[in-house]
Amino acid sequence: MTEEKLPLRSENYSEWYNQVIQRTEMADYAPVRGCMVVRPYGWALWENIQQALDKRFKATGHQNAAFPLFIPMSFLEKEKEHVEGFSPELAVVTIGGGEKLEEPLVVRPTSETVIGYMYSKWIKSYRDLPVLINQWGNVVRWELRTRLFLRTLEFYWQEGHTAHATEQEAEEETRRMLDVYTDFAVNEAAVPVIPGMKSATEKFAGAARSYTIEAMMGDTKALQSGTSHNLGQNFARAFDIQYLDQNNALQYCWTTSWGLSTRFIGAIIMTHGDDQGLKLPPRLAPIQVVIVPIYKNDEERGKVIPVVEKVQQMLTEFRLKVDDRTEVTPGFKFNHWEMRGVPLRIEIGPKDVEKGSVALARRDIPGRDGKQFVSQEGLAAVVSNLLKDIQAAMLEKARAFRDANIHEPKDYAELNTIVQNGWALAHWCGSVDCEARVKEDTKATIRCIPLENGQGKGKCIVCGQPAEQKAYFAKSY
Amino acid sequence: MTEEKLPLRSENYSEWYNQVIQRTEMADYAPVRGCMVVRPYGWALWENIQQALDKRFKATGHQNAAFPLFIPMSFLEKEKEHVEGFSPELAVVTIGGGEKLEEPLVVRPTSETVIGYMYSKWIKSYRDLPVLINQWGNVVRWELRTRLFLRTLEFYWQEGHTAHATEQEAEEETRRMLDVYTDFAVNEAAVPVIPGMKSATEKFAGAARSYTIEAMMGDTKALQSGTSHNLGQNFARAFDIQYLDQNNALQYCWTTSWGLSTRFIGAIIMTHGDDQGLKLPPRLAPIQVVIVPIYKNDEERGKVIPVVEKVQQMLTEFRLKVDDRTEVTPGFKFNHWEMRGVPLRIEIGPKDVEKGSVALARRDIPGRDGKQFVSQEGLAAVVSNLLKDIQAAMLEKARAFRDANIHEPKDYAELNTIVQNGWALAHWCGSVDCEARVKEDTKATIRCIPLENGQGKGKCIVCGQPAEQKAYFAKSY
Repeated sequence: MTEEKLPLRSENYSEWYNQVIQRTEMADYAPVRGCMVVRPYGWALWENIQQALDKRFKATGHQNAAFPLFIPMSFLEKEKEHVEGFSPELAVVTIGGGEKLEEPLVVRPTSETVIGYMYSKWIKSYRDLPVLINQWGNVVRWELRTRLFLRTLEFYWQEGHTAHATEQEAEEETRRMLDVYTDFAVNEAAVPVIPGMKSATEKFAGAARSYTIEAMMGDTKALQSGTSHNLGQNFARAFDIQYLDQNNALQYCWTTSWGLSTRFIGAIIMTHGDDQGLKLPPRLAPIQVVIVPIYKNDEERGKVIPVVEKVQQMLTEFRLKVDDRTEVTPGFKFNHWEMRGVPLRIEIGPKDVEKGSVALARRDIPGRDGKQFVSQEGLAAVVSNLLKDIQAAMLEKARAFRDANIHEPKDYAELNTIVQNGWALAHWCGSVDCEARVKEDTKATIRCIPLENGQGKGKCIVCGQPAEQKAYFAKSY
Repeated sequence: MTEEKLPLRSENYSEWYNQVIQRTEMADYAPVRGCMVVRPYGWALWENIQQALDKRFKATGHQNAAFPLFIPMSFLEKEKEHVEGFSPELAVVTIGGGEKLEEPLVVRPTSETVIGYMYSKWIKSYRDLPVLINQWGNVVRWELRTRLFLRTLEFYWQEGHTAHATEQEAEEETRRMLDVYTDFAVNEAAVPVIPGMKSATEKFAGAARSYTIEAMMGDTKALQSGTSHNLGQNFARAFDIQYLDQNNALQYCWTTSWGLSTRFIGAIIMTHGDDQGLKLPPRLAPIQVVIVPIYKNDEERGKVIPVVEKVQQMLTEFRLKVDDRTEVTPGFKFNHWEMRGVPLRIEIGPKDVEKGSVALARRDIPGRDGKQFVSQEGLAAVVSNLLKDIQAAMLEKARAFRDANIHEPKDYAELNTIVQNGWALAHWCGSVDCEARVKEDTKATIRCIPLENGQGKGKCIVCGQPAEQKAYFAKSY
């Protein structure tokens, strides 16, 4: 019994991506076009992402709630930019309980409108502010070209929605949640994202200002991996979200929204994966350690298995799997768990039983360099440190790759070359025309105006006019 | 500032229920008819329910996954009983991305069909069995008469779906998950449910056999609080879920499904609530302990608040809230948290500061009897024990109420009287006609044939013919 090899990542990135996901049983295509099934291995990763984020949301004062899946069509029409942005992508329920509905219902593509409606009911006074609510759920956007995790008709996400008394508080919240996303991406997923502001062209439909975390995938394309929007008073005015201030005067609220979705699983796969398959960061990996027993016959098996069980008992603090299948070889199991990206493999054979040792193999360092033989004594501490090392090394590797593929072009011609296989960081005057020209000439878009290293005077890389900010230009998913 | 009193539970149960939910901010009506918004306080309760169940699901070998919201209409038609049961309740998407769909999509009312389709893709051999998957999500059923938590168009639940090699394994799984629900209900929610089998009339559309946990609400009506179905080979045949057995022969799988929903929040409210409002079991309560500081002026406040903070630090193991609002009185706060069902209140005033004491007030025992004064020293242990006592006392009280309202009628006339305000436990011959007659005469239905105390020969309470089982007859939600 052997497993077929994956297509090489270097040769066919797109096919590699699709096959990795299906072969590792992370996800599968559903019978409805463009919809996916997230299988247990993929969902376990999402649950770990959820926990890491949810802990941060609660630590910053947010509570979870659940708003309805269905939104009256008329709600979307209340915010002009919003309806223009989302109406081409809507799934619409027109029949309920066997009868044609008087007003069609939209399956939520995002929930600003219906949450805005509820906030206008709930918020009366400045004492009710801020309202800090998050929702974990599913949304639907009728996309034409879909791809597992990256772009599906239905996807899973969290959407935070907050209301504040002042513009400044809303901006602080927007930035705070961008920081939360950055911290999560870097420290949990080992994805070295670049936080920044979206250009007006790329911002959320209905927002005053959108922020994003942008990640570089293994093919150097960019992936927008989470966004945080300052909605100004746009939705507050559309839905009458008002409060009485300390002087008993009626004021409109300032609102924000922010979201991160199952798309982030795509970011993890494409940031870390290699020709062997997935490479999962230890802090989020559904299985952190796999134990593979090695034996040639029943007699050896009889000696090895009790030690495997003893070692398993020593490592209960980790998410651990023992692969004790008898119908496949150890070599098959090595490939199996490498493809699934398990950070650390422990091998235990007859010699280890004699010596009181185990063999450890790092997923992130292939071959002999990633292998070591250690004593069973004190193994938990060794494993703990090794998982930390792997986490740090994965971040470092991704950061080095990212930095090696970001260049500062000296002129427009060079920008054109750079974005064919990397990101360009260059001054931009802020005009929509210059932005559009780059897109037309190269298919690259402005990914963000970075929060760090984005200032300083210079000349626009496109038109040569004075510019006060830099932007990242790149092709993207 | 005062809060309006609730309607009395004894006088208008239905209005009491609605107002408790809205006034405690557990849930609210959404702008779409029959849909609800679960607000943070209600969702925090649901999260605790989720955790308590999810832990049990994982301990019994299940993994979570996510299947699509949309199901092709043709899928439902593959299982005859299933489509008959669900087609009157469907929400149907007919437009996607601005265009009329070739095949309308149903918003899932339950997921047997689409999961069956995926299982037929994934399951090849006996080695792939059992498949033990659960999904947390939302479903939609187009109900005409809706009620917060009990019956809404959209609701939240978990649905487990498993596939097995043999009939016996499927039956064992069905009963195992019923046991999990019973254990959860009794030991986490203090809801003393009665597990049993549904009659053929009341079973799930498409099941071979349905089991249920039935709870008695405060008005003695029954609430079906969780169900577990043995689906036989019905869905395996409809969706071709087949496997190769050890002899290389193709066999149909045996499947099960089981679900528990946000309806259970209704069970908690109506099992424990009283005229003052909610009464939440400590193990699930979003807030287990509330501290109310007592002071008359700034000087007293200056002495009390540091002690409140010290006590808060001593009780970090509990879900604790300090109500330090200055705009309302302590009396207002007492009512506020009583209505919200917080199991234990701690009062700290100037005298407590002097004496090193606190006052404790139990939610489940009103007035002086529920109050005690204890030392701040060792408070965590006292609180921990008290919460256990409250949990046990709530279960005991609910069980006593339930048992006091179950009667065994000596004849059909007495059954008629009993079910007007209680449950009747009586022999039933198993005929659909007798079941229908009871419903017509009394509006009561067979809630379940209990697993315990349900056997033994006797005469059918309706027709007098020999009967080998007993059933609970009751009006229900």
